[in-house]
Amino acid sequence: MNEAIVKKLHEYSTATERYLREYFITIRNVPKKLHESMMYSINAGGKRLRPALLLGSFNTFSNNQLMAAVPFAASIEMIHTYSLIHDDLPSMDDDDLRRGKPSNHIIYGESGAILAGDALLNSAMENILSDLNKNCNENKLRAAYIIMEAAGASGMIGGQVLDIEGAYDGDSLAAMHSMKTGALIKAAVLAGGILGGCGKNEEIYLTEYSQNLGCAFQIKDDILDVESTSDILGKPIGSDSRNEKTTYTSLYSVETAKKMLSERIDDSLNALNGLERNTAFLEAIAIYVRDRKD
Amino acid sequence: MNEAIVKKLHEYSTATERYLREYFITIRNVPKKLHESMMYSINAGGKRLRPALLLGSFNTFSNNQLMAAVPFAASIEMIHTYSLIHDDLPSMDDDDLRRGKPSNHIIYGESGAILAGDALLNSAMENILSDLNKNCNENKLRAAYIIMEAAGASGMIGGQVLDIEGAYDGDSLAAMHSMKTGALIKAAVLAGGILGGCGKNEEIYLTEYSQNLGCAFQIKDDILDVESTSDILGKPIGSDSRNEKTTYTSLYSVETAKKMLSERIDDSLNALNGLERNTAFLEAIAIYVRDRKD
Repeated sequence: MNEAIVKKLHEYSTATERYLREYFITIRNVPKKLHESMMYSINAGGKRLRPALLLGSFNTFSNNQLMAAVPFAASIEMIHTYSLIHDDLPSMDDDDLRRGKPSNHIIYGESGAILAGDALLNSAMENILSDLNKNCNENKLRAAYIIMEAAGASGMIGGQVLDIEGAYDGDSLAAMHSMKTGALIKAAVLAGGILGGCGKNEEIYLTEYSQNLGCAFQIKDDILDVESTSDILGKPIGSDSRNEKTTYTSLYSVETAKKMLSERIDDSLNALNGLERNTAFLEAIAIYVRDRKD
Repeated sequence: MNEAIVKKLHEYSTATERYLREYFITIRNVPKKLHESMMYSINAGGKRLRPALLLGSFNTFSNNQLMAAVPFAASIEMIHTYSLIHDDLPSMDDDDLRRGKPSNHIIYGESGAILAGDALLNSAMENILSDLNKNCNENKLRAAYIIMEAAGASGMIGGQVLDIEGAYDGDSLAAMHSMKTGALIKAAVLAGGILGGCGKNEEIYLTEYSQNLGCAFQIKDDILDVESTSDILGKPIGSDSRNEKTTYTSLYSVETAKKMLSERIDDSLNALNGLERNTAFLEAIAIYVRDRKD
Protein backbone atom coordinates (compact mmCIF):
# COMPACT_ATOMS: atom_id res chain seq x y z
CA MET A 1 0.00 0.00 0.00
CA ASN A 2 1.39 3.40 -0.87
CA GLU A 3 1.54 6.21 1.65
CA ALA A 4 -1.53 8.06 0.38
CA ILE A 5 -3.70 4.95 0.78
CA VAL A 6 -2.36 4.22 4.27
CA LYS A 7 -3.16 7.81 5.19
CA LYS A 8 -6.70 7.50 3.86
CA LEU A 9 -7.21 4.22 5.70
CA HIS A 10 -6.03 5.87 8.89
CA GLU A 11 -8.33 8.84 8.32
CA TYR A 12 -11.34 6.55 7.84
CA SER A 13 -10.71 4.36 10.84
CA THR A 14 -9.93 7.37 13.02
CA ALA A 15 -13.15 9.11 11.99
CA THR A 16 -15.17 5.96 12.65
CA GLU A 17 -13.53 5.28 16.00
CA ARG A 18 -13.89 8.87 17.15
CA TYR A 19 -17.57 8.75 16.27
CA LEU A 20 -18.04 5.43 18.07
CA ARG A 21 -16.23 6.77 21.15
CA GLU A 22 -18.52 9.81 21.21
CA TYR A 23 -21.55 7.60 20.71
CA PHE A 24 -20.74 5.45 23.72
CA ILE A 25 -20.02 8.52 25.84
CA THR A 26 -23.30 10.20 25.00
CA ILE A 27 -25.73 7.27 25.29
CA ARG A 28 -27.57 7.56 28.58
CA ASN A 29 -29.28 5.19 30.98
CA VAL A 30 -27.48 2.08 29.79
CA PRO A 31 -26.74 -0.39 32.62
CA LYS A 32 -23.03 -0.34 33.41
CA LYS A 33 -22.36 -3.99 32.61
CA LEU A 34 -24.15 -3.78 29.26
CA HIS A 35 -22.34 -0.58 28.31
CA GLU A 36 -19.04 -2.21 29.20
CA SER A 37 -19.66 -5.39 27.22
CA MET A 38 -20.78 -3.48 24.12
CA MET A 39 -17.64 -1.35 24.25
CA TYR A 40 -15.42 -4.36 24.97
CA SER A 41 -16.20 -5.86 21.59
CA ILE A 42 -16.32 -2.56 19.70
CA ASN A 43 -12.83 -1.75 21.00
CA ALA A 44 -11.37 -5.22 20.51
CA GLY A 45 -9.19 -4.09 17.62
CA GLY A 46 -11.18 -4.81 14.48
CA LYS A 47 -9.72 -3.91 11.11
CA ARG A 48 -12.61 -1.45 10.40
CA LEU A 49 -12.73 -2.82 6.86
CA ARG A 50 -16.45 -2.20 6.34
CA PRO A 51 -16.31 1.44 7.48
CA ALA A 52 -13.25 1.96 5.26
CA LEU A 53 -15.13 0.52 2.28
CA LEU A 54 -18.15 2.71 2.98
CA LEU A 55 -16.13 5.89 3.42
CA GLY A 56 -13.77 5.06 0.54
CA SER A 57 -16.72 4.47 -1.74
CA PHE A 58 -18.31 7.73 -0.52
CA ASN A 59 -15.12 9.66 -1.33
CA THR A 60 -14.96 8.08 -4.78
CA PHE A 61 -18.03 10.12 -5.69
CA SER A 62 -18.00 13.06 -3.31
CA ASN A 63 -15.53 15.50 -1.84
CA ASN A 64 -18.07 16.61 0.76
CA GLN A 65 -17.33 16.43 4.45
CA LEU A 66 -16.81 12.82 5.53
CA MET A 67 -19.21 13.40 8.43
CA ALA A 68 -22.14 12.98 6.02
CA ALA A 69 -21.25 9.29 5.85
CA VAL A 70 -19.49 8.52 9.16
CA PRO A 71 -22.68 7.71 11.14
CA PHE A 72 -23.45 5.01 8.57
CA ALA A 73 -19.88 3.70 8.77
CA ALA A 74 -20.17 3.49 12.56
CA SER A 75 -23.49 1.66 12.36
CA ILE A 76 -22.12 -0.89 9.91
CA GLU A 77 -19.23 -1.55 12.31
CA MET A 78 -21.72 -2.04 15.18
CA ILE A 79 -23.61 -4.57 13.04
CA HIS A 80 -20.40 -6.40 12.13
CA THR A 81 -19.32 -6.48 15.78
CA TYR A 82 -22.67 -7.83 17.02
CA SER A 83 -22.53 -10.58 14.39
CA LEU A 84 -19.10 -11.68 15.64
CA ILE A 85 -20.34 -11.78 19.26
CA HIS A 86 -23.29 -13.98 18.31
CA ASP A 87 -21.21 -16.17 15.93
CA ASP A 88 -18.77 -16.95 18.74
CA LEU A 89 -21.47 -18.15 21.17
CA PRO A 90 -21.28 -21.71 22.52
CA SER A 91 -24.43 -22.67 20.60
CA MET A 92 -22.95 -21.31 17.35
CA ASP A 93 -19.21 -21.63 16.51
CA ASP A 94 -18.17 -21.87 20.18
CA ASP A 95 -15.01 -19.81 19.73
CA ASP A 96 -13.21 -18.55 22.87
CA LEU A 97 -10.86 -16.15 21.15
CA ARG A 98 -11.58 -13.20 18.87
CA ARG A 99 -9.13 -10.59 17.64
CA GLY A 100 -6.57 -11.96 20.11
CA LYS A 101 -8.80 -11.47 23.13
CA PRO A 102 -11.32 -13.65 24.97
CA SER A 103 -14.66 -13.67 23.15
CA ASN A 104 -17.43 -11.56 24.64
CA HIS A 105 -19.22 -14.53 26.25
CA ILE A 106 -16.02 -15.67 27.97
CA ILE A 107 -15.96 -12.34 29.83
CA TYR A 108 -19.65 -11.45 30.14
CA GLY A 109 -21.32 -14.86 30.06
CA GLU A 110 -23.66 -16.26 27.48
CA SER A 111 -26.68 -14.09 28.31
CA GLY A 112 -24.47 -11.01 28.58
CA ALA A 113 -23.03 -11.67 25.13
CA ILE A 114 -26.43 -12.30 23.53
CA LEU A 115 -27.73 -9.02 24.97
CA ALA A 116 -24.59 -7.05 24.04
CA GLY A 117 -25.08 -8.30 20.49
CA ASP A 118 -28.77 -7.40 20.49
CA ALA A 119 -27.92 -3.97 21.85
CA LEU A 120 -25.28 -3.31 19.18
CA LEU A 121 -27.69 -4.23 16.39
CA ASN A 122 -30.32 -2.02 17.98
CA SER A 123 -27.81 0.81 18.46
CA ALA A 124 -26.85 0.61 14.79
CA MET A 125 -30.45 1.43 13.93
CA GLU A 126 -30.93 4.04 16.68
CA ASN A 127 -27.80 5.78 15.46
CA ILE A 128 -28.92 5.87 11.83
CA LEU A 129 -32.41 7.05 12.82
CA SER A 130 -30.93 9.73 15.04
CA ASP A 131 -28.95 10.98 12.04
CA LEU A 132 -32.03 10.84 9.78
CA ASN A 133 -33.98 12.85 12.36
CA LYS A 134 -31.36 15.60 12.14
CA ASN A 135 -31.04 15.62 8.38
CA CYS A 136 -32.86 13.32 6.01
CA ASN A 137 -32.72 12.87 2.26
CA GLU A 138 -33.53 10.16 -0.26
CA ASN A 139 -29.95 8.91 -0.57
CA LYS A 140 -29.66 8.48 3.20
CA LEU A 141 -32.96 6.59 3.34
CA ARG A 142 -31.83 4.24 0.57
CA ALA A 143 -28.42 3.71 2.16
CA ALA A 144 -30.04 2.90 5.51
CA TYR A 145 -32.37 0.36 3.93
CA ILE A 146 -29.56 -1.27 1.96
CA ILE A 147 -27.51 -1.73 5.13
CA MET A 148 -30.36 -3.14 7.21
CA GLU A 149 -31.52 -5.46 4.44
CA ALA A 150 -27.98 -6.80 4.03
CA ALA A 151 -27.76 -7.42 7.78
CA GLY A 152 -31.03 -9.33 7.94
CA ALA A 153 -32.75 -12.62 7.21
CA SER A 154 -32.03 -12.49 3.47
CA GLY A 155 -28.44 -11.39 4.11
CA MET A 156 -26.02 -11.86 6.98
CA ILE A 157 -28.35 -13.60 9.45
CA GLY A 158 -29.67 -15.92 6.75
CA GLY A 159 -26.07 -16.73 5.83
CA GLN A 160 -25.28 -17.67 9.42
CA VAL A 161 -28.28 -20.04 9.44
CA LEU A 162 -26.99 -21.68 6.23
CA ASP A 163 -23.49 -21.85 7.73
CA ILE A 164 -24.82 -23.77 10.75
CA GLU A 165 -26.78 -26.11 8.47
CA GLY A 166 -23.53 -26.68 6.57
CA ALA A 167 -22.60 -26.31 2.91
CA TYR A 168 -21.99 -29.42 0.80
CA ASP A 169 -20.73 -28.24 -2.59
CA GLY A 170 -19.18 -25.24 -4.29
CA ASP A 171 -22.49 -23.62 -5.15
CA SER A 172 -24.01 -23.86 -1.67
CA LEU A 173 -20.72 -22.73 -0.13
CA ALA A 174 -20.59 -19.64 -2.37
CA ALA A 175 -24.28 -18.90 -1.78
CA MET A 176 -23.84 -19.13 1.99
CA HIS A 177 -20.81 -16.83 2.05
CA SER A 178 -22.38 -14.31 -0.32
CA MET A 179 -25.06 -13.88 2.35
CA LYS A 180 -23.02 -14.30 5.55
CA THR A 181 -20.03 -12.11 4.65
CA GLY A 182 -20.68 -10.78 1.17
CA ALA A 183 -23.97 -9.00 1.81
CA LEU A 184 -22.59 -6.54 4.39
CA ILE A 185 -19.42 -5.86 2.37
CA LYS A 186 -21.55 -5.14 -0.68
CA ALA A 187 -23.86 -2.94 1.40
CA ALA A 188 -20.89 -0.94 2.73
CA VAL A 189 -19.67 -0.20 -0.80
CA LEU A 190 -23.12 0.52 -2.23
CA ALA A 191 -24.34 2.62 0.69
CA GLY A 192 -21.13 4.67 0.57
CA GLY A 193 -21.53 5.26 -3.16
CA ILE A 194 -25.18 6.25 -2.81
CA LEU A 195 -24.39 8.62 0.07
CA GLY A 196 -21.73 10.13 -2.19
CA GLY A 197 -24.26 10.62 -4.97
CA CYS A 198 -23.20 7.95 -7.47
CA GLY A 199 -25.41 7.34 -10.49
CA LYS A 200 -27.59 4.29 -11.12
CA ASN A 201 -25.18 2.92 -13.75
CA GLU A 202 -22.28 3.37 -11.34
CA GLU A 203 -24.13 1.24 -8.78
CA ILE A 204 -23.79 -1.68 -11.20
CA TYR A 205 -19.99 -1.46 -11.16
CA LEU A 206 -19.95 -1.02 -7.38
CA THR A 207 -22.09 -4.13 -7.05
CA GLU A 208 -19.75 -6.11 -9.31
CA TYR A 209 -16.69 -4.88 -7.40
CA SER A 210 -18.09 -5.58 -3.97
CA GLN A 211 -19.58 -9.00 -4.71
CA ASN A 212 -16.25 -10.23 -6.00
CA LEU A 213 -14.46 -8.60 -3.09
CA GLY A 214 -16.76 -10.26 -0.53
CA CYS A 215 -16.21 -13.66 -2.08
CA ALA A 216 -12.44 -13.12 -2.25
CA PHE A 217 -12.45 -12.07 1.40
CA GLN A 218 -13.95 -15.39 2.44
CA ILE A 219 -11.67 -17.50 0.24
CA LYS A 220 -8.71 -15.70 1.81
CA ASP A 221 -10.13 -16.36 5.29
CA ASP A 222 -10.23 -20.07 4.54
CA ILE A 223 -6.66 -20.02 3.21
CA LEU A 224 -5.44 -18.19 6.33
CA ASP A 225 -7.28 -20.71 8.51
CA VAL A 226 -4.94 -23.45 7.22
CA GLU A 227 -1.77 -21.44 6.47
CA SER A 228 -1.56 -18.94 9.33
CA THR A 229 -1.24 -19.24 13.10
CA SER A 230 -3.58 -18.43 15.97
CA ASP A 231 -1.10 -15.76 17.15
CA ILE A 232 -1.19 -13.87 13.86
CA LEU A 233 -4.95 -14.23 13.31
CA GLY A 234 -5.98 -13.47 16.87
CA LYS A 235 -8.50 -16.30 16.72
CA PRO A 236 -8.21 -20.09 16.85
CA ILE A 237 -7.08 -21.65 13.58
CA GLY A 238 -8.57 -24.89 12.32
CA SER A 239 -11.92 -23.95 13.90
CA ASP A 240 -13.74 -24.78 10.69
CA SER A 241 -12.21 -28.22 10.36
CA ARG A 242 -12.90 -28.85 14.08
CA ASN A 243 -16.55 -27.99 13.40
CA GLU A 244 -16.39 -30.14 10.24
CA LYS A 245 -17.35 -27.19 8.09
CA THR A 246 -16.96 -27.18 4.34
CA THR A 247 -14.46 -24.49 3.31
CA TYR A 248 -12.79 -23.41 0.08
CA THR A 249 -9.67 -25.30 1.15
CA SER A 250 -11.49 -28.48 2.21
CA LEU A 251 -13.64 -28.57 -0.92
CA TYR A 252 -10.84 -27.57 -3.31
CA SER A 253 -7.07 -27.66 -2.78
CA VAL A 254 -5.22 -24.71 -1.23
CA GLU A 255 -3.66 -24.14 -4.66
CA THR A 256 -7.06 -24.00 -6.35
CA ALA A 257 -8.41 -21.72 -3.62
CA LYS A 258 -5.51 -19.31 -4.25
CA LYS A 259 -6.29 -19.33 -7.96
CA MET A 260 -9.97 -18.62 -7.25
CA LEU A 261 -8.94 -15.78 -4.94
CA SER A 262 -6.81 -14.22 -7.66
CA GLU A 263 -9.60 -14.45 -10.20
CA ARG A 264 -12.09 -12.81 -7.87
CA ILE A 265 -9.74 -9.94 -7.16
CA ASP A 266 -9.06 -9.50 -10.89
CA ASP A 267 -12.81 -9.35 -11.52
CA SER A 268 -13.29 -6.79 -8.75
CA LEU A 269 -10.49 -4.62 -10.19
CA ASN A 270 -11.97 -4.89 -13.67
CA ALA A 271 -15.32 -3.70 -12.35
CA LEU A 272 -13.66 -0.54 -11.02
CA ASN A 273 -12.42 0.22 -14.54
CA GLY A 274 -16.04 0.78 -15.52
CA LEU A 275 -16.18 3.77 -13.18
CA GLU A 276 -14.63 6.87 -14.65
CA ARG A 277 -13.43 7.94 -11.22
CA ASN A 278 -10.31 7.87 -9.10
CA THR A 279 -10.66 4.38 -7.66
CA ALA A 280 -7.14 4.07 -6.21
CA PHE A 281 -8.44 3.49 -2.70
CA LEU A 282 -10.95 0.78 -3.63
CA GLU A 283 -8.28 -0.90 -5.77
CA ALA A 284 -5.84 -0.89 -2.88
CA ILE A 285 -8.42 -2.52 -0.60
CA ALA A 286 -8.90 -5.33 -3.12
CA ILE A 287 -5.14 -5.93 -3.27
CA TYR A 288 -5.02 -5.82 0.53
CA VAL A 289 -7.78 -8.44 0.79
CA ARG A 290 -5.77 -10.73 -1.51
CA ASP A 291 -2.40 -10.24 0.21
CA ARG A 292 -3.33 -9.76 3.88
CA LYS A 293 -1.62 -11.88 6.51
CA ASP A 294 -4.40 -11.72 9.14
CA MET B 1 -65.35 -4.32 27.29
CA ASN B 2 -68.23 -2.98 25.28
CA GLU B 3 -68.91 -4.11 21.75
CA ALA B 4 -67.38 -1.05 20.04
CA ILE B 5 -64.07 -1.57 21.84
CA VAL B 6 -64.00 -5.28 21.07
CA LYS B 7 -64.63 -4.40 17.42
CA LYS B 8 -61.77 -1.87 17.42
CA LEU B 9 -59.43 -4.35 19.09
CA HIS B 10 -60.32 -6.92 16.46
CA GLU B 11 -59.79 -4.36 13.68
CA TYR B 12 -56.33 -3.47 15.02
CA SER B 13 -55.11 -7.03 15.50
CA THR B 14 -56.53 -8.09 12.12
CA ALA B 15 -54.80 -5.20 10.34
CA THR B 16 -51.50 -6.00 12.09
CA GLU B 17 -51.73 -9.72 11.42
CA ARG B 18 -52.69 -9.24 7.79
CA TYR B 19 -49.71 -6.93 7.37
CA LEU B 20 -47.37 -9.41 9.07
CA ARG B 21 -48.69 -12.26 6.91
CA GLU B 22 -48.05 -10.22 3.76
CA TYR B 23 -44.60 -9.29 5.06
CA PHE B 24 -43.57 -12.90 5.53
CA ILE B 25 -44.97 -13.87 2.15
CA THR B 26 -43.09 -11.13 0.32
CA ILE B 27 -39.64 -11.37 1.93
CA ARG B 28 -37.31 -13.19 -0.44
CA ASN B 29 -34.17 -15.28 -0.11
CA VAL B 30 -34.70 -16.18 3.53
CA PRO B 31 -33.51 -19.73 4.35
CA LYS B 32 -36.51 -21.99 4.90
CA LYS B 33 -35.72 -22.92 8.49
CA LEU B 34 -35.15 -19.30 9.51
CA HIS B 35 -38.35 -18.16 7.82
CA GLU B 36 -40.26 -20.91 9.59
CA SER B 37 -38.85 -20.15 13.03
CA MET B 38 -39.54 -16.40 12.71
CA MET B 39 -43.15 -17.13 11.71
CA TYR B 40 -43.54 -19.77 14.41
CA SER B 41 -43.11 -17.18 17.14
CA ILE B 42 -44.95 -14.37 15.32
CA ASN B 43 -47.96 -16.68 14.92
CA ALA B 44 -47.84 -18.18 18.42
CA GLY B 45 -50.96 -16.33 19.50
CA GLY B 46 -49.78 -13.13 21.11
CA LYS B 47 -52.32 -10.63 22.43
CA ARG B 48 -51.09 -7.92 20.02
CA LEU B 49 -51.31 -5.43 22.88
CA ARG B 50 -48.53 -3.16 21.64
CA PRO B 51 -49.92 -2.87 18.09
CA ALA B 52 -53.37 -2.18 19.58
CA LEU B 53 -51.92 0.58 21.76
CA LEU B 54 -50.08 2.10 18.82
CA LEU B 55 -53.09 2.00 16.50
CA GLY B 56 -55.53 3.06 19.23
CA SER B 57 -53.32 6.01 20.09
CA PHE B 58 -53.05 6.87 16.37
CA ASN B 59 -56.85 6.84 16.03
CA THR B 60 -57.22 9.05 19.09
CA PHE B 61 -55.70 11.87 17.06
CA SER B 62 -56.38 10.95 13.45
CA ASN B 63 -59.16 9.52 11.34
CA ASN B 64 -56.78 8.91 8.47
CA GLN B 65 -56.36 5.47 6.97
CA LEU B 66 -54.96 3.07 9.56
CA MET B 67 -52.38 1.92 7.00
CA ALA B 68 -50.33 5.03 7.76
CA ALA B 69 -49.51 3.45 11.14
CA VAL B 70 -49.83 -0.32 10.59
CA PRO B 71 -46.21 -0.85 9.41
CA PHE B 72 -45.06 0.63 12.73
CA ALA B 73 -47.50 -1.57 14.67
CA ALA B 74 -46.17 -4.64 12.86
CA SER B 75 -42.56 -3.68 13.58
CA ILE B 76 -43.27 -3.18 17.28
CA GLU B 77 -44.83 -6.65 17.40
CA MET B 78 -41.72 -8.11 15.71
CA ILE B 79 -39.57 -6.44 18.37
CA HIS B 80 -41.77 -7.72 21.19
CA THR B 81 -41.70 -11.25 19.72
CA TYR B 82 -37.91 -11.30 19.34
CA SER B 83 -37.53 -10.18 22.95
CA LEU B 84 -39.66 -13.10 24.15
CA ILE B 85 -37.60 -15.59 22.10
CA HIS B 86 -34.34 -14.32 23.61
CA ASP B 87 -35.81 -14.04 27.15
CA ASP B 88 -36.85 -17.71 27.04
CA LEU B 89 -33.35 -18.97 26.09
CA PRO B 90 -31.60 -21.44 28.42
CA SER B 91 -28.98 -18.83 29.33
CA MET B 92 -31.72 -16.30 30.22
CA ASP B 93 -35.02 -17.35 31.88
CA ASP B 94 -34.82 -20.92 30.52
CA ASP B 95 -38.57 -21.19 29.88
CA ASP B 96 -39.82 -24.10 27.76
CA LEU B 97 -43.35 -22.84 27.24
CA ARG B 98 -44.61 -19.59 25.74
CA ARG B 99 -48.19 -18.70 24.84
CA GLY B 100 -49.15 -22.33 25.41
CA LYS B 101 -46.64 -23.69 22.92
CA PRO B 102 -43.04 -24.89 23.14
CA SER B 103 -40.63 -21.95 23.21
CA ASN B 104 -38.78 -21.20 19.99
CA HIS B 105 -35.51 -22.81 21.17
CA ILE B 106 -37.32 -26.05 22.09
CA ILE B 107 -38.33 -26.41 18.43
CA TYR B 108 -35.46 -24.75 16.57
CA GLY B 109 -32.56 -25.19 18.99
CA GLU B 110 -30.61 -22.53 20.80
CA SER B 111 -28.74 -21.12 17.79
CA GLY B 112 -31.93 -21.20 15.70
CA ALA B 113 -33.78 -19.22 18.36
CA ILE B 114 -31.01 -16.64 18.77
CA LEU B 115 -30.93 -16.09 15.01
CA ALA B 116 -34.73 -15.97 14.66
CA GLY B 117 -34.72 -13.26 17.35
CA ASP B 118 -31.92 -11.35 15.64
CA ALA B 119 -33.79 -11.60 12.34
CA LEU B 120 -37.05 -10.31 13.82
CA LEU B 121 -35.32 -7.29 15.35
CA ASN B 122 -33.59 -6.66 12.03
CA SER B 123 -36.86 -7.13 10.12
CA ALA B 124 -38.59 -4.60 12.35
CA MET B 125 -36.10 -2.04 11.19
CA GLU B 126 -36.05 -3.15 7.53
CA ASN B 127 -39.83 -2.89 7.49
CA ILE B 128 -39.87 0.65 8.93
CA LEU B 129 -37.11 1.76 6.55
CA SER B 130 -38.97 0.25 3.61
CA ASP B 131 -42.02 2.31 4.62
CA LEU B 132 -39.89 5.46 5.04
CA ASN B 133 -38.41 4.91 1.58
CA LYS B 134 -41.91 4.94 0.12
CA ASN B 135 -43.20 7.90 2.06
CA CYS B 136 -41.25 9.82 4.67
CA ASN B 137 -42.16 12.70 6.94
CA GLU B 138 -40.95 14.15 10.24
CA ASN B 139 -43.56 12.41 12.35
CA LYS B 140 -42.63 9.02 10.92
CA LEU B 141 -38.94 9.65 11.53
CA ARG B 142 -39.62 10.61 15.14
CA ALA B 143 -41.90 7.62 15.71
CA ALA B 144 -39.27 5.27 14.27
CA TYR B 145 -36.57 6.67 16.53
CA ILE B 146 -38.81 6.49 19.61
CA ILE B 147 -39.55 2.81 18.95
CA MET B 148 -35.92 1.83 18.32
CA GLU B 149 -34.65 3.79 21.31
CA ALA B 150 -37.22 2.09 23.56
CA ALA B 151 -36.14 -1.32 22.27
CA GLY B 152 -32.45 -0.69 22.91
CA ALA B 153 -29.74 -0.54 25.53
CA SER B 154 -31.39 2.28 27.46
CA GLY B 155 -34.80 0.58 27.22
CA MET B 156 -35.92 -3.01 26.80
CA ILE B 157 -32.50 -4.65 26.38
CA GLY B 158 -31.08 -2.68 29.30
CA GLY B 159 -34.07 -3.79 31.37
CA GLN B 160 -33.38 -7.43 30.57
CA VAL B 161 -29.76 -6.99 31.72
CA LEU B 162 -31.00 -5.49 35.00
CA ASP B 163 -33.54 -8.32 35.33
CA ILE B 164 -30.77 -10.92 35.05
CA GLU B 165 -28.67 -9.04 37.60
CA GLY B 166 -31.73 -9.08 39.88
CA ALA B 167 -33.66 -6.34 41.63
CA TYR B 168 -33.39 -5.98 45.39
CA ASP B 169 -35.87 -3.30 46.47
CA GLY B 170 -38.98 -1.50 45.26
CA ASP B 171 -37.05 1.23 43.47
CA SER B 172 -34.72 -1.05 41.53
CA LEU B 173 -37.64 -3.35 40.70
CA ALA B 174 -39.68 -0.45 39.30
CA ALA B 175 -36.67 0.94 37.42
CA MET B 176 -35.95 -2.45 35.85
CA HIS B 177 -39.54 -2.99 34.72
CA SER B 178 -39.93 0.55 33.41
CA MET B 179 -37.09 -0.35 31.02
CA LYS B 180 -37.81 -4.00 30.31
CA THR B 181 -41.57 -3.78 29.73
CA GLY B 182 -42.52 -0.15 30.19
CA ALA B 183 -40.30 1.39 27.53
CA LEU B 184 -41.86 -0.44 24.58
CA ILE B 185 -45.43 0.08 25.86
CA LYS B 186 -44.71 3.79 26.23
CA ALA B 187 -43.14 3.87 22.76
CA ALA B 188 -46.21 2.20 21.24
CA VAL B 189 -48.52 4.85 22.70
CA LEU B 190 -46.24 7.80 21.91
CA ALA B 191 -45.33 6.66 18.40
CA GLY B 192 -49.01 6.10 17.61
CA GLY B 193 -49.91 9.55 18.88
CA ILE B 194 -47.11 11.23 16.94
CA LEU B 195 -48.05 9.35 13.74
CA GLY B 196 -51.60 10.59 14.33
CA GLY B 197 -50.38 14.18 14.63
CA CYS B 198 -50.80 14.81 18.38
CA GLY B 199 -49.45 18.07 19.82
CA LYS B 200 -46.38 18.42 22.05
CA ASN B 201 -48.55 19.04 25.15
CA GLU B 202 -50.60 15.95 24.33
CA GLU B 203 -47.42 13.89 24.33
CA ILE B 204 -47.09 14.69 28.04
CA TYR B 205 -50.44 13.07 28.83
CA LEU B 206 -49.66 10.09 26.59
CA THR B 207 -46.37 9.64 28.43
CA GLU B 208 -48.13 9.77 31.81
CA TYR B 209 -50.79 7.31 30.65
CA SER B 210 -48.37 4.84 29.14
CA GLN B 211 -45.80 4.86 31.93
CA ASN B 212 -48.48 4.02 34.49
CA LEU B 213 -49.95 1.43 32.15
CA GLY B 214 -46.58 -0.26 31.64
CA CYS B 215 -45.98 -0.45 35.37
CA ALA B 216 -49.50 -1.77 35.98
CA PHE B 217 -48.98 -4.40 33.30
CA GLN B 218 -45.96 -5.79 35.11
CA ILE B 219 -47.59 -5.75 38.55
CA LYS B 220 -50.50 -7.67 37.06
CA ASP B 221 -48.07 -10.17 35.49
CA ASP B 222 -46.55 -10.83 38.90
CA ILE B 223 -50.00 -11.28 40.46
CA LEU B 224 -51.02 -13.72 37.71
CA ASP B 225 -47.75 -15.63 38.21
CA VAL B 226 -48.92 -16.58 41.73
CA GLU B 227 -52.72 -16.62 41.29
CA SER B 228 -53.23 -18.18 37.86
CA THR B 229 -52.37 -21.53 36.29
CA SER B 230 -49.95 -22.57 33.57
CA ASP B 231 -52.93 -23.67 31.44
CA ILE B 232 -54.55 -20.25 31.51
CA LEU B 233 -51.32 -18.26 31.09
CA GLY B 234 -49.83 -20.50 28.43
CA LYS B 235 -46.45 -20.28 30.15
CA PRO B 236 -45.01 -21.87 33.28
CA ILE B 237 -46.18 -20.24 36.51
CA GLY B 238 -43.82 -19.73 39.40
CA SER B 239 -40.93 -19.23 36.96
CA ASP B 240 -39.86 -16.08 38.78
CA SER B 241 -39.74 -17.73 42.18
CA ARG B 242 -37.87 -20.70 40.64
CA ASN B 243 -35.30 -18.23 39.33
CA GLU B 244 -35.34 -16.47 42.74
CA LYS B 245 -36.39 -13.22 41.13
CA THR B 246 -37.74 -10.30 43.11
CA THR B 247 -41.32 -9.58 42.05
CA TYR B 248 -44.10 -7.25 43.22
CA THR B 249 -45.67 -10.18 45.07
CA SER B 250 -42.44 -11.39 46.68
CA LEU B 251 -41.38 -7.91 47.75
CA TYR B 252 -44.85 -6.80 48.86
CA SER B 253 -47.92 -8.93 49.64
CA VAL B 254 -50.38 -9.96 46.92
CA GLU B 255 -52.88 -7.60 48.57
CA THR B 256 -50.48 -4.67 48.43
CA ALA B 257 -49.58 -5.51 44.81
CA LYS B 258 -53.28 -5.39 43.92
CA LYS B 259 -53.61 -2.01 45.57
CA MET B 260 -50.55 -0.73 43.67
CA LEU B 261 -52.06 -2.06 40.44
CA SER B 262 -55.31 -0.18 41.07
CA GLU B 263 -53.48 3.05 41.79
CA ARG B 264 -51.43 2.82 38.64
CA ILE B 265 -54.51 2.23 36.52
CA ASP B 266 -56.28 5.18 38.20
CA ASP B 267 -53.27 7.38 37.40
CA SER B 268 -53.25 6.25 33.79
CA LEU B 269 -56.98 6.98 33.45
CA ASN B 270 -56.51 10.39 35.03
CA ALA B 271 -53.81 11.21 32.50
CA LEU B 272 -56.24 10.52 29.66
CA ASN B 273 -58.58 13.16 31.11
CA GLY B 274 -55.96 15.75 30.19
CA LEU B 275 -56.52 14.96 26.52
CA GLU B 276 -59.60 16.59 25.10
CA ARG B 277 -60.18 13.65 22.82
CA ASN B 278 -62.26 10.52 22.64
CA THR B 279 -60.08 8.22 24.72
CA ALA B 280 -62.59 5.39 25.17
CA PHE B 281 -60.28 2.82 23.56
CA LEU B 282 -57.20 3.73 25.59
CA GLU B 283 -59.32 3.72 28.76
CA ALA B 284 -60.66 0.27 27.95
CA ILE B 285 -57.12 -1.07 27.46
CA ALA B 286 -56.16 0.21 30.91
CA ILE B 287 -59.17 -1.52 32.49
CA TYR B 288 -58.32 -4.67 30.54
CA VAL B 289 -54.73 -4.63 31.82
CA ARG B 290 -56.08 -4.43 35.39
CA ASP B 291 -58.71 -7.15 35.03
CA ARG B 292 -57.14 -9.58 32.52
CA LYS B 293 -57.00 -13.27 33.43
CA ASP B 294 -54.00 -14.15 31.24
